[in-house]
Amino acid sequence: MTVNDIHSINLKIFTSFNCFGCIHWLYQMLNRVIIMNFEHSELCQQYLERVRAFMQEHIFPVEAQIMRENHEINGHGDWTRWQVPGQIKALKQKAKEQGLWNLFLPDAELGQGLSCVDYAPLAEEMGKCLFGAEIFNCNAPDTGNMEVLYHFGSEAQKDQWLTPLLAGEIRSVFGMTEPDVASSDATNMQASITLDGDEVVVNGRKWWTTGLGHPDAKIAIVMGLTDASAEKHSQHSMVLVPLDAPGVKIERMLTACGDYDAPYGHGEMSFTDVRVPKANIIMGLGKGFAIAQGRLGPGRIHHCMRAIGAAERSLELMIKRGASREAFGKPLIKLGGNLERVAQARMLIEQARLLTLNAAWKIDNLGVKKAMTEISAIKVVVPNMLQTVVDMAIQMHGGMGVSGDTPLYGFSVMARSLRLADGPDEVHMGMVSRLELAKYK
Amino acid sequence: MTVNDIHSINLKIFTSFNCFGCIHWLYQMLNRVIIMNFEHSELCQQYLERVRAFMQEHIFPVEAQIMRENHEINGHGDWTRWQVPGQIKALKQKAKEQGLWNLFLPDAELGQGLSCVDYAPLAEEMGKCLFGAEIFNCNAPDTGNMEVLYHFGSEAQKDQWLTPLLAGEIRSVFGMTEPDVASSDATNMQASITLDGDEVVVNGRKWWTTGLGHPDAKIAIVMGLTDASAEKHSQHSMVLVPLDAPGVKIERMLTACGDYDAPYGHGEMSFTDVRVPKANIIMGLGKGFAIAQGRLGPGRIHHCMRAIGAAERSLELMIKRGASREAFGKPLIKLGGNLERVAQARMLIEQARLLTLNAAWKIDNLGVKKAMTEISAIKVVVPNMLQTVVDMAIQMHGGMGVSGDTPLYGFSVMARSLRLADGPDEVHMGMVSRLELAKYK
Amino acid sequence: MTVNDIHSINLKIFTSFNCFGCIHWLYQMLNRVIIMNFEHSELCQQYLERVRAFMQEHIFPVEAQIMRENHEINGHGDWTRWQVPGQIKALKQKAKEQGLWNLFLPDAELGQGLSCVDYAPLAEEMGKCLFGAEIFNCNAPDTGNMEVLYHFGSEAQKDQWLTPLLAGEIRSVFGMTEPDVASSDATNMQASITLDGDEVVVNGRKWWTTGLGHPDAKIAIVMGLTDASAEKHSQHSMVLVPLDAPGVKIERMLTACGDYDAPYGHGEMSFTDVRVPKANIIMGLGKGFAIAQGRLGPGRIHHCMRAIGAAERSLELMIKRGASREAFGKPLIKLGGNLERVAQARMLIEQARLLTLNAAWKIDNLGVKKAMTEISAIKVVVPNMLQTVVDMAIQMHGGMGVSGDTPLYGFSVMARSLRLADGPDEVHMGMVSRLELAKYK
Amino acid sequence: MTVNDIHSINLKIFTSFNCFGCIHWLYQMLNRVIIMNFEHSELCQQYLERVRAFMQEHIFPVEAQIMRENHEINGHGDWTRWQVPGQIKALKQKAKEQGLWNLFLPDAELGQGLSCVDYAPLAEEMGKCLFGAEIFNCNAPDTGNMEVLYHFGSEAQKDQWLTPLLAGEIRSVFGMTEPDVASSDATNMQASITLDGDEVVVNGRKWWTTGLGHPDAKIAIVMGLTDASAEKHSQHSMVLVPLDAPGVKIERMLTACGDYDAPYGHGEMSFTDVRVPKANIIMGLGKGFAIAQGRLGPGRIHHCMRAIGAAERSLELMIKRGASREAFGKPLIKLGGNLERVAQARMLIEQARLLTLNAAWKIDNLGVKKAMTEISAIKVVVPNMLQTVVDMAIQMHGGMGVSGDTPLYGFSVMARSLRLADGPDEVHMGMVSRLELAKYK
Repeated sequence: MTVNDIHSINLKIFTSFNCFGCIHWLYQMLNRVIIMNFEHSELCQQYLERVRAFMQEHIFPVEAQIMRENHEINGHGDWTRWQVPGQIKALKQKAKEQGLWNLFLPDAELGQGLSCVDYAPLAEEMGKCLFGAEIFNCNAPDTGNMEVLYHFGSEAQKDQWLTPLLAGEIRSVFGMTEPDVASSDATNMQASITLDGDEVVVNGRKWWTTGLGHPDAKIAIVMGLTDASAEKHSQHSMVLVPLDAPGVKIERMLTACGDYDAPYGHGEMSFTDVRVPKANIIMGLGKGFAIAQGRLGPGRIHHCMRAIGAAERSLELMIKRGASREAFGKPLIKLGGNLERVAQARMLIEQARLLTLNAAWKIDNLGVKKAMTEISAIKVVVPNMLQTVVDMAIQMHGGMGVSGDTPLYGFSVMARSLRLADGPDEVHMGMVSRLELAKYK
Repeated sequence: MTVNDIHSINLKIFTSFNCFGCIHWLYQMLNRVIIMNFEHSELCQQYLERVRAFMQEHIFPVEAQIMRENHEINGHGDWTRWQVPGQIKALKQKAKEQGLWNLFLPDAELGQGLSCVDYAPLAEEMGKCLFGAEIFNCNAPDTGNMEVLYHFGSEAQKDQWLTPLLAGEIRSVFGMTEPDVASSDATNMQASITLDGDEVVVNGRKWWTTGLGHPDAKIAIVMGLTDASAEKHSQHSMVLVPLDAPGVKIERMLTACGDYDAPYGHGEMSFTDVRVPKANIIMGLGKGFAIAQGRLGPGRIHHCMRAIGAAERSLELMIKRGASREAFGKPLIKLGGNLERVAQARMLIEQARLLTLNAAWKIDNLGVKKAMTEISAIKVVVPNMLQTVVDMAIQMHGGMGVSGDTPLYGFSVMARSLRLADGPDEVHMGMVSRLELAKYK
Repeated sequence: MTVNDIHSINLKIFTSFNCFGCIHWLYQMLNRVIIMNFEHSELCQQYLERVRAFMQEHIFPVEAQIMRENHEINGHGDWTRWQVPGQIKALKQKAKEQGLWNLFLPDAELGQGLSCVDYAPLAEEMGKCLFGAEIFNCNAPDTGNMEVLYHFGSEAQKDQWLTPLLAGEIRSVFGMTEPDVASSDATNMQASITLDGDEVVVNGRKWWTTGLGHPDAKIAIVMGLTDASAEKHSQHSMVLVPLDAPGVKIERMLTACGDYDAPYGHGEMSFTDVRVPKANIIMGLGKGFAIAQGRLGPGRIHHCMRAIGAAERSLELMIKRGASREAFGKPLIKLGGNLERVAQARMLIEQARLLTLNAAWKIDNLGVKKAMTEISAIKVVVPNMLQTVVDMAIQMHGGMGVSGDTPLYGFSVMARSLRLADGPDEVHMGMVSRLELAKYK
Repeated sequence: MTVNDIHSINLKIFTSFNCFGCIHWLYQMLNRVIIMNFEHSELCQQYLERVRAFMQEHIFPVEAQIMRENHEINGHGDWTRWQVPGQIKALKQKAKEQGLWNLFLPDAELGQGLSCVDYAPLAEEMGKCLFGAEIFNCNAPDTGNMEVLYHFGSEAQKDQWLTPLLAGEIRSVFGMTEPDVASSDATNMQASITLDGDEVVVNGRKWWTTGLGHPDAKIAIVMGLTDASAEKHSQHSMVLVPLDAPGVKIERMLTACGDYDAPYGHGEMSFTDVRVPKANIIMGLGKGFAIAQGRLGPGRIHHCMRAIGAAERSLELMIKRGASREAFGKPLIKLGGNLERVAQARMLIEQARLLTLNAAWKIDNLGVKKAMTEISAIKVVVPNMLQTVVDMAIQMHGGMGVSGDTPLYGFSVMARSLRLADGPDEVHMGMVSRLELAKYK
């Protein structure tokens, strides 16, 4: 008897309902069936099928072509000339029309009302294509920034920035990491955000500001130091800074793993006496860490699930390539330890996915604070898993694996960068061990 | 809002039930809450607390003492003199009286009606002590043998062997592995089980027959070749062979990782023209593989969950030791990469547990056949995880870690042996990759 | 000439001396001292100091500047516009004037008379800068091609191609890998080299032809199939094909790990009825494998030693960065497992270097054929070591580690590519295991 | 005397010869050939062949039989009844008669005049059998103790203890590790060694005192605290304590990895007001660390080379087993990733051996102090390598691999214990990283 059978029984019982005596039994049975369940909800399953179909029909067939087009028009370091490939725009429009839009946002009106657990498998699906999330308006850093505005923004802030972001009309960036200090310890941050009458003055330098080179990038959420004398996690603030504000300067785009990641780009930018209205402060001065914590939980689920999708795609490519080429009289997949690599990839992926889904479930049901171990754990485990899996897949492809002819090398860049973005592995392992030791105090 | 809150809401809704209109809503909401749930059921939670309390109160306080007593009376290779430590007997009696008995068996009357998923956390708890499962009559190979008899045995077989096994009055062994062939390929098996009138004749040699040295061992389930001309997986049979049958000879006990594992022992035994009644055949001639497959699924969950318990205990010991000893002016736990090891252990354990629970859930809900990837995957992942975790814990203990003064070395033997028992890692990776490749055919 | 030969020579010399008394002592002492010696020879030591000084004085101070200049003029995919940075040309001229030129070539006149063992530490030194080897005219694939011409070329071939290559006036490429077959099994090769009267006709397609985009690239050594009916390793030939020969077409440059590696480039090229004089065949038809084997031995030493230099540089950068940045109140290098990573890097590097030097020593003293295990072993061990070490160094640098601001990411590309170039890890492990099993036959 | 010294001597000798013409050539050639040489010296080669022949003829044929005999007579925890198997005594006598005796001792009269580099390959050979070193009187801890007495003992101490140890008539133990403190930081040591008139008083508790259970064990070298106010590395002393001195008590034998290691044993012992003559102090009060440092260098070479021998033997057994058993229609060795494991084992072993030989060469030529990185590095690398290799070999053997039927499990115990003995991996990685960082200060 599967869960689905149980469900139809439930429904029958419900519809013939008039004896209260069976409630206790029902509750007991629900306890038996409900709990520890590894299946997707119907809502999730429904969207999953739609996203999957969209990708099969509209994205994968033109994936290579779009990658080439993007390389042709954006394959240079002059970010001021970057453009969005036309096919990307068309695909976004189509997804929007189909209601496959802003799936990441739990709100039923602004998004599609999907919980973190429900969205996770969709993010995995999107992650199978390097620009998948973009098509569904589910791309970082906009997702995190929209979440910040959704949860912590004022109505005015929402009107001005959340609405066009949700519509996919503009893009946003997040200014956190700084070149001059070890930003893995966020309390090191030196950029300053200070109040001067009705204005906020921002000074400092940020880098690894993803999306800064995008032609539609209009607004930055900037984190900086407001009051060094306050309690450690109340010293920093977040403020909305339009990219055309006087004093904001884009210094350069950085290559990440040799790639500009055009048309997004990872920028280095400076703020010199930049003045914005006081109303641009999010939540209040000193609330930077509180917002950051809320922002990062779901965002890490999204990143990790996309990475899991990338790993699934890598494994698929690895098997297909291995089965279709021959050397020494056998398909590559049967040579040496290749079959064991397939098994290892499968075992690593399954574990990483379950770990991430469990973290998502904890965020949904217990809140981010009670999911700190889980959130840090996936941040370490998943990108490392992807790095391992994609490395094996590359190896199976020979030279083609490091070329631009497959998405594999892009996935490997994704893995490598994720091991640093939002805190390096080492910082997250530190968090996991700190919480572990705390159990014994 | 946590799941428990939802539940109480549910209950309130149910008890005020008289509008059919809300059924659809309720069903929807249940879908949202029910599915993808990582919590234990109440039944599980209840037993878990009882098992945990039993171990805290009755087992851990005397654990070291029992290990010493066992070493004193059984610390030699002469298995004919092995005895069960008196304290073990007393603890088993106490557990039986409390109804913490045969928890592994899903049957509500003979066992406690716990599904594989519900039992899994209990097995983990038991695994924290090397003889934990024994106390609750949940020890291998008896559990697997009881499952075979429960699912496939005739009424007469059940009366004769299942009943006293469930009562903990006798013990059983399982004769599968053979010294002369690579038994990881079970079709290599050479022992013969042939019909001769109303009798079955057994010839051959088996080793790694766990429990063979136990004073209460009375019965063996033996697997052997019946018809080499039949279809590959219908050639073998299983038959019940009393250990006092003429022609059954215990050749010796083997050390496993230097340990006789007294008073159980891993035996080498020979069968020379052993004759038992035809009625001792389980299910029918040629059904050996069918039974073996059914036997192994839940058994692997049990083994793996115990191994996860052993890993949790190892991590606990590692942290406690590391926090209580100093070198170079700091607690050991803060030296070098030790904190990262804590994090790695936590991340490995969480992943292994989720993988195993997912496998258990698949067995419960989809059946063993649809859980083949998962069952093979945990068989590889979990013992390797335990080996890694316990290795780090040993390292933190210095010389004490390899001594008999902690359970750590026992756990490491458990890990090492499990990587071979029921098929080596390599065979299970082969299974995982075969199923993976089959997706593309 | 092996060491034993030398010993007998020594002995002869000694015994023809007048003072017989000290010969025995001397011989004994030589035995004690000579053998198993891990020191550099004086010749090696002398060149090592000169190369080191050159790099300290002339290369490292302008390294970042040259990398930037190269990125500026060549940071695009249009290889027809690639140029050699002026500073590179100047540095090469300076090195040539100082006699730090063609150090790789054992010949005392054309090169500097350095054995493989003597050159190895120089290659390591050069490898600390991504363009180090280039400066000393010791860059692949020219080195390998020069070795082919030196050892196997006719006088006419030497005059026409070796001389300008040694002078650094032109560059060469090597056409081996093909896009349509798994080229790790070189017998798969499909490009054809056939004799037609006094001409050789070449047809086929090659890719990963390194250096093909370089403005000075003039000549290709192409390997292809001549006679499919011959003995397996006598079917292929190598022929010299000028890049301006009719029918030679450069189809495109490939990115390797997202990088065009300008101004060298990794090209895909086609040969359509290309005709060159018969005299362009190297050694003779069917000699392709014989040449390839000779070519690869020393070449792998060079690659591996450069990779070891890259690893040393990575470790240096890792320590310096880790010591100069603070987080959580400590230098990064003292956080978490970072110090253990330093130790692991040191241990991995030392082992990889000794393994490579031992391989070099075997090539020098026993010949390539008796060093097959060693040559394959370093091909696996060293790039994997570099990948591990540079990965740790990147991690210590945070985002900067994957940027173009340090040579680290370039080193990681070097490591990743080397695991595929000249046969993937898996093929070389296959070679090592085959030779190992052969010991028991 | 370093190599450079030798060279200047050479030059002087050469220049005093009559034939000046060839000197320059000879010197050049020596430079080319002498330096960076990976061959054994003739002395080494000669002894290596003799040891190898002895093991082939006299040890391997009876190895299994001796292991069984030892298990039969000593397979219990009552160390007071342990005996030396008769065959062991006979083999030792034979080796002594052949002059294959005390090979570890560099002294030409008391030993065979072999340097550390020359002895290393012999130790490797001995390590292929678990009791190999014992046969040649080259077993720890006697070797280390003999070295202490040889280098630092007074004439009286040598007469009384070194002479019978060299003759193999008695055995010795070394008391360093203590149960109550983290002894990896040797400055933690609490046992006290204090002067009282003409006597030395020893108090404290030691464990992991290897060899303490041996019937011939007569003397302990005990390290303890003399003056806590002295400079950190001058606080401790070493003193000779006869095991029959009043106040010396053997508390128990410990199992190491489940094994008593009879008839040697790892003991826990207590010293209660034990009084020995002042003359029993080695070198002087406060010289404990100075002696320990000198003791450990060559000892680690010995341990590591034996471990390398064990790894070679494991690989041999792995290949032979894998080639001789079939499963799924193929020899095991050709299934899954097994051939890659062979290659990995070969690559790990070669690297570990070269690392160890290089360390030995540094000890011989530069002294222990200049070889600290190397000595710590091998202490980490080699036992981990053995653990990996033997784990793979066990896996290839299936259940037999963890039984007592092969030496594999014994080798795995050797590996596991060595990762803790003489300082755990972590302490040695700490040493390597400390020395590495010191390069940048």
